[in-house]
Amino acid sequence: MHGADGFIAVDWGTTNRRAYRIDSEGTCVSSFEDQSGVLSVPADGFAAAAADVRARLGDLPMLLAGMVGSTRGWVEAPYVACPAGLDDLAAGLSWIEPGRTAIVPGLSVVTDDRADVMRGEEVQLFGAIASGLIPGTSFVCHPGTHNKWVTIVDGRIISFRTVMTGEMFSTLRERGILTEMLTGSVVPGEHFIRGVRRGLSGATLTAELFSARAQVLLGQIERDCAPSYVSGLLIGADLGVGLGLAPDGEAVIMGDSELTGLYAAAAADCALPVVEIDGGQAFVAGAFALARSIP
Amino acid sequence: MHGADGFIAVDWGTTNRRAYRIDSEGTCVSSFEDQSGVLSVPADGFAAAAADVRARLGDLPMLLAGMVGSTRGWVEAPYVACPAGLDDLAAGLSWIEPGRTAIVPGLSVVTDDRADVMRGEEVQLFGAIASGLIPGTSFVCHPGTHNKWVTIVDGRIISFRTVMTGEMFSTLRERGILTEMLTGSVVPGEHFIRGVRRGLSGATLTAELFSARAQVLLGQIERDCAPSYVSGLLIGADLGVGLGLAPDGEAVIMGDSELTGLYAAAAADCALPVVEIDGGQAFVAGAFALARSIP
Repeated sequence: MHGADGFIAVDWGTTNRRAYRIDSEGTCVSSFEDQSGVLSVPADGFAAAAADVRARLGDLPMLLAGMVGSTRGWVEAPYVACPAGLDDLAAGLSWIEPGRTAIVPGLSVVTDDRADVMRGEEVQLFGAIASGLIPGTSFVCHPGTHNKWVTIVDGRIISFRTVMTGEMFSTLRERGILTEMLTGSVVPGEHFIRGVRRGLSGATLTAELFSARAQVLLGQIERDCAPSYVSGLLIGADLGVGLGLAPDGEAVIMGDSELTGLYAAAAADCALPVVEIDGGQAFVAGAFALARSIP
Repeated sequence: MHGADGFIAVDWGTTNRRAYRIDSEGTCVSSFEDQSGVLSVPADGFAAAAADVRARLGDLPMLLAGMVGSTRGWVEAPYVACPAGLDDLAAGLSWIEPGRTAIVPGLSVVTDDRADVMRGEEVQLFGAIASGLIPGTSFVCHPGTHNKWVTIVDGRIISFRTVMTGEMFSTLRERGILTEMLTGSVVPGEHFIRGVRRGLSGATLTAELFSARAQVLLGQIERDCAPSYVSGLLIGADLGVGLGLAPDGEAVIMGDSELTGLYAAAAADCALPVVEIDGGQAFVAGAFALARSIP
């Protein structure tokens, strides 16, 4: 992938994909985003879906990251165990066609009492380091459907912990006893912060979520404020996990600004200094660094 | 409801209803259960649904308990605040037709930092006391869609705490990243107990649930054992709430035997002595005691 014409990198997730054409200097010269996530592609349809990307961005070598490498994706790219650096990712690529199409492996963590996995975020993380957006020793929060708290030392991902905050919130909005009170929007104000503090207290989420409903029924929380309170509860519990892992000093929050803003507001309330950075830019930098690391 | 022919009591929940004809001695002489829960009855259809019960069990006075008294039910019966005794329930009945059809109020708890509500379980609780199934001073676990931990002193419900364990488990089975690994059955064996211990440790559920998935992906948990582990996690977290409220001595577990068995297995692992009792029998006794308390 060292050609003068550059290459294509795709962040191919469960429900959408973002494809970037990156030139030989590492600059993104063209890109698109669509809803052709892994779940929308039939098991035998990935070659055609990849050809479609080339038809739109150029007939170039291609690196594919994210859920496209999972059991539901094109080819399962086995996880690389942490601690892992960019070279380990490059060595662990699963080649669909040598020199032309590769899938980036995800990362795994296994300890005596838990396990964890990541697919896609690792490219952003290494990219943020490679491009100087964050130091090589950093503590990163990566919100999304599944938030990741990531410990990076000297450019290597040492460990991480996933909290399924985003998925839980969207699930509660769509199914069960809380749905009718969660239709509004989330605002990082008073009710959100009250939820954050409650979530951070270590209280049991399955009890606190029901209490939120009771507080609405009994008039302690206005229905319009319930989404903010419940989002705060979940993000507060999530932040509790992060604070338990955080070294001294600041945390980096990387991802879409809507989510990073909520996490930043929660972190500010408990005096955790944070820096927000954009995930898309980091992905391009990570894919470029990875392409250059291929032996 | 003191007539020689007795009366009808209905435990009318969200998804089903159980109706009992009770004679003047308090004995259930006829009953049925069907799927005509509150959600299946149109807003203007409750009079007809009640007439259907009388058509099947007799043209008698009727006490209705459970979600039929909620905002989604026939008539909203305002909550009675705890501490509350059987007399408070009787005084708080919402009469649809005086002397003939009444809705039993639910109970509420409000403190500085939380709120809670109950509808239906209160009849079983007072019934268990009235019939001598449990002492007037008891600590009761009432598993179901929404488990309740209830503190009863001298025949009055002092306080309670709801944990939405059952709803969370069924939600995770139906929607989201864990669904495919939760299709099997729950067995209260080794994997269940490992989950219970993890849940009891105070670990954050949204992190532990994702870790369960990662443990399956990485081969640490057999897929067939995942439902037991995840059920254990949720019941362990629930039990942690209960242990935080439990006085010395034993807890009563009241409800359906499938669920009470899981809670009893979890309690046994942490040396909480428990007694299991049947909820249906307690409901009949509670409705009879309530009918006799009507001024």
